[in-house]
Amino acid sequence: MYRTHTCGCLTLRDAGQTVTLAGWVQRMRDLGGMTFIDLRDRYGITQLTFNMETQPGLCAEARRLGREFVLQVTGTVCERSNKNPKIPTGDIEIHVTELRVLNAALVPPFTIEDDTDGGDELRMRYRYLDLRRAMVRKNIELRHRIAQETRRYLDDHQFLEIETPVLIKSTPEGARDFVVPSRMNPGQFYALPQSPQQYKQLLMVSGFDRYFQIVKCFRDEDLRADRQPEFTQIDCEMSFVEQDDVLQLFEGLIKHLFKKIKGIEFKEPFRRMPYSEAMSLYGSDKPDLRFDMKICDLTQLVKGKGFGIFDQAPYIGGICVPGAAAYSRKQTDELTDFVKSPQVGASGLVYVKWNADGTFKSSVDKFYTPDDLRRWMEAAGASAGDLMLVLSGPADRTRVQLGQLRLEMGNRLGLRSKDEFKPLWVVDFPLFEWDEETQRFYAMHHPFTSPRPEDIQYFETDPGRMAAAAYDCVMNGVELGGGSIRIHDADVQQKMFAALGFTPEQAEEQFGFLMHAFQYGAPPHGGIAFGFDRLVSMMAGLDSIRDTIAFPKNNAGRDVMSNSPAPLDASQLRELHIAVTE
Amino acid sequence: MYRTHTCGCLTLRDAGQTVTLAGWVQRMRDLGGMTFIDLRDRYGITQLTFNMETQPGLCAEARRLGREFVLQVTGTVCERSNKNPKIPTGDIEIHVTELRVLNAALVPPFTIEDDTDGGDELRMRYRYLDLRRAMVRKNIELRHRIAQETRRYLDDHQFLEIETPVLIKSTPEGARDFVVPSRMNPGQFYALPQSPQQYKQLLMVSGFDRYFQIVKCFRDEDLRADRQPEFTQIDCEMSFVEQDDVLQLFEGLIKHLFKKIKGIEFKEPFRRMPYSEAMSLYGSDKPDLRFDMKICDLTQLVKGKGFGIFDQAPYIGGICVPGAAAYSRKQTDELTDFVKSPQVGASGLVYVKWNADGTFKSSVDKFYTPDDLRRWMEAAGASAGDLMLVLSGPADRTRVQLGQLRLEMGNRLGLRSKDEFKPLWVVDFPLFEWDEETQRFYAMHHPFTSPRPEDIQYFETDPGRMAAAAYDCVMNGVELGGGSIRIHDADVQQKMFAALGFTPEQAEEQFGFLMHAFQYGAPPHGGIAFGFDRLVSMMAGLDSIRDTIAFPKNNAGRDVMSNSPAPLDASQLRELHIAVTE
Repeated sequence: MYRTHTCGCLTLRDAGQTVTLAGWVQRMRDLGGMTFIDLRDRYGITQLTFNMETQPGLCAEARRLGREFVLQVTGTVCERSNKNPKIPTGDIEIHVTELRVLNAALVPPFTIEDDTDGGDELRMRYRYLDLRRAMVRKNIELRHRIAQETRRYLDDHQFLEIETPVLIKSTPEGARDFVVPSRMNPGQFYALPQSPQQYKQLLMVSGFDRYFQIVKCFRDEDLRADRQPEFTQIDCEMSFVEQDDVLQLFEGLIKHLFKKIKGIEFKEPFRRMPYSEAMSLYGSDKPDLRFDMKICDLTQLVKGKGFGIFDQAPYIGGICVPGAAAYSRKQTDELTDFVKSPQVGASGLVYVKWNADGTFKSSVDKFYTPDDLRRWMEAAGASAGDLMLVLSGPADRTRVQLGQLRLEMGNRLGLRSKDEFKPLWVVDFPLFEWDEETQRFYAMHHPFTSPRPEDIQYFETDPGRMAAAAYDCVMNGVELGGGSIRIHDADVQQKMFAALGFTPEQAEEQFGFLMHAFQYGAPPHGGIAFGFDRLVSMMAGLDSIRDTIAFPKNNAGRDVMSNSPAPLDASQLRELHIAVTE
Repeated sequence: MYRTHTCGCLTLRDAGQTVTLAGWVQRMRDLGGMTFIDLRDRYGITQLTFNMETQPGLCAEARRLGREFVLQVTGTVCERSNKNPKIPTGDIEIHVTELRVLNAALVPPFTIEDDTDGGDELRMRYRYLDLRRAMVRKNIELRHRIAQETRRYLDDHQFLEIETPVLIKSTPEGARDFVVPSRMNPGQFYALPQSPQQYKQLLMVSGFDRYFQIVKCFRDEDLRADRQPEFTQIDCEMSFVEQDDVLQLFEGLIKHLFKKIKGIEFKEPFRRMPYSEAMSLYGSDKPDLRFDMKICDLTQLVKGKGFGIFDQAPYIGGICVPGAAAYSRKQTDELTDFVKSPQVGASGLVYVKWNADGTFKSSVDKFYTPDDLRRWMEAAGASAGDLMLVLSGPADRTRVQLGQLRLEMGNRLGLRSKDEFKPLWVVDFPLFEWDEETQRFYAMHHPFTSPRPEDIQYFETDPGRMAAAAYDCVMNGVELGGGSIRIHDADVQQKMFAALGFTPEQAEEQFGFLMHAFQYGAPPHGGIAFGFDRLVSMMAGLDSIRDTIAFPKNNAGRDVMSNSPAPLDASQLRELHIAVTE
């Protein structure tokens, strides 16, 4: 071992001891007769001192070192005259008597500091140096702890961690698969799993009762800001359970993690909100409950006063922004620009100000009296000093736009603190989504999701009204996880496939081996999968999942550090029985 | 929840309680007025009774059930008259009052028993049913426990579990990569990792100090009996350590696992055996120490008596088989056939019997006197009643053949018990292997393996004599894991590449980003990787790793359950910019 202690553990109690440390040069300062070096390792920073008077050779040597050199030093632990209360080792320093350079280092292309001078692109190319920064390292350490506590909780609840295959069969339904040509089976391909869905259901058929896995999944999608081609799930499945059992158990997991990792106790049960309520009050199936500002349906209130846009709109809704009546023209213009931006797509914004003096001012004063406006605002629970923002159009689309505006106002008013966590379950999702273009139903979750028992009767008559026994775990406007009770009854599964427009042959072709398995005694079962990267990102207070991943890929799916993907040798392609076509 | 208890937990203490159970029909018996059903779940088996006299309807219904039907039953826990001491629930039975069939089941194609009537092929096709068998399930449960205990130990020793990418850069050196065409980067490919070797070394450069991962790795090799295209490693790396630190820490892991999981304590430190000793005494770099029967070098002893084969052979060695002097002609013929078989490849076998009466009998009596033979046998530590088996030829090859013969004799004599575990470290591996065909050195481990410090001086003069700071953890003739101290010094790495015949350009092309990283302050580091499937297989007493894997592939790399790999749609290939060439 190159050290007796780490750089994070020495305190005044060790004063007088001779110790050996190893680590990286974080900082150097020459102060006349003394040279100070901050030596860094994963565990902390310890100050080293070299004295020009008593050890001129050693001190001269120390002065020739550079940032990020790797050192081994031996010396005596001494009390500091100038203590640093910000770090655990701040009371002591090491008077160095032996110095060994374990490795030299080129000057890093950016500073290894939380507040680094390196741009995103540069830090990704030198990710191994970026990972040295304390704030990046802490995220990876947090990820480790969340993983260990997740396993501990699930192990304590009789879940078995079972590895499912990475080289599986490609299924055309859903997002695109990454595929792997098989050398031993010419012309044939494996796929990488988008999730272990079918395997975990097979494990329930096998009687494993409770399964989990923290597992890599793969999706060949055009990447958006917060997507990675490979991502990690906490994947779980249970037998002989109903929806409520799953929610309770995994609510317990989230509570366990927040308590153990962040010292935060959620004392109340998580709220359970039907999908329809989430959409009508928050314009989102993942409502951010850190602030109120619910959407108020004004449709009936605003009609018939001669304002054509509202009179013709199928839906009019508004949100009340507390204390914002004093917004300037510039500010309301900004909000109009926001709702008209492509990512929101509204055609315009109506505002009403209930001024502190009790008067009203709106962009539709021509059509509505102060009494009219007061009625709108009272409907939304507003009072003097508040601002109401109103959008109109088709109900579903307008609610989503109001939901986006609501989040924007939450940001502007500083109502979305990263230190506050508001979990809930969104339940009773629709079983099907209707697609106008292809004129067919699609499964909102996947074709194995069970309807709520009370809705099974509507398969033939009114599939659009059916709700699924599906649930999402939502926190602060982010979907942390989701799942469902699965169909275990062959008849129900047939009806599901029929409603989705699958012929029996297509269902057999795509899901054959799972369907076969179900004929041999499938138990009632259900499960959930949490986005592990997202969960870590939430608990770390990060904006992107990328910072929770040691070696992430960029938005083009490239690893700029190793320069991958890359072309293959012709001989490699030949062995795999494939050719590049363009 | 469909149950109040599992099928494994009820005992006499629960007598009189009303309980609800759910599970599968393991067995049914009609005994006149009573019907008995064994209900099975992951946790055990509970006997259900149905009484024709008191509940004729329910009993008749029970008689219509079949094997592997999924039931939910409610009833009263009662003491059995006919107790079964072999199972924890054997003192009680459930007098059923309510029966609900949760799912019917087709008759399974083989019996769900430890001693099943299903052949290998059939069981793999219906792996989800095979997994219901207790002996298969127990292996998967054991695997879970070993994984959890491994993480606990490593977490307790400050290791961080860090996920490394699955979509990485292809490296031509070594075994074949599985590759993944990139849709977004036409003509380019990712590779699946054969191990996270380079990433874990980068993590050391990043200062993570101690890393581990239980991780899937991939090798596109022609599969032998005990190989899988995807397999799992316990992958570890540590900074600021020397070989002895790594051995101690991971010896601790193995001891921890055997103690926690099997209740076996290894009290002594693991033996450390140099590679050269393992090869000369056991003919193997993974010696099975459950029995002695060491190889004895007879080269000097047997020369010069006119037996041409021995006189011309560069090496003659033998093993002494205790108590086997009475072997029949048939038995020695079998052994001759064994050594001449293609997998051993010797040209013949010489035997010497030291009979119980003190006389000698050998297949070379024409050339050697009884005194000669006695000297050979005494050299090998034999005594009257023993059999000596002698092979000759080039030293390295002959030792390996003797090693194979030794294991065969160990099997024949029943000296290789699955309940006995003999761990050791094999150390001081050669740094290089010389390949006659290509007339160059290859790295015996990989090009980042450090030579022993004392051997660095021989890079230019005599690379063949250099030993590596590399080590294997061996148990019962199986390599459980292996690793090395890595090169962290750029000069040493240059010399290594030079010795391997890499031009600087080739080294840059293949290992560029790792080499660059090393310039920015690489700490001394080393690590190890254990074959997780093999470790589980060893602890479970299995002959194959396949039985430790929930969904293994067959020897052609196929999953016969899902029928994968499979052809892709033309449109999928087009999107990926590839075509199948044959």
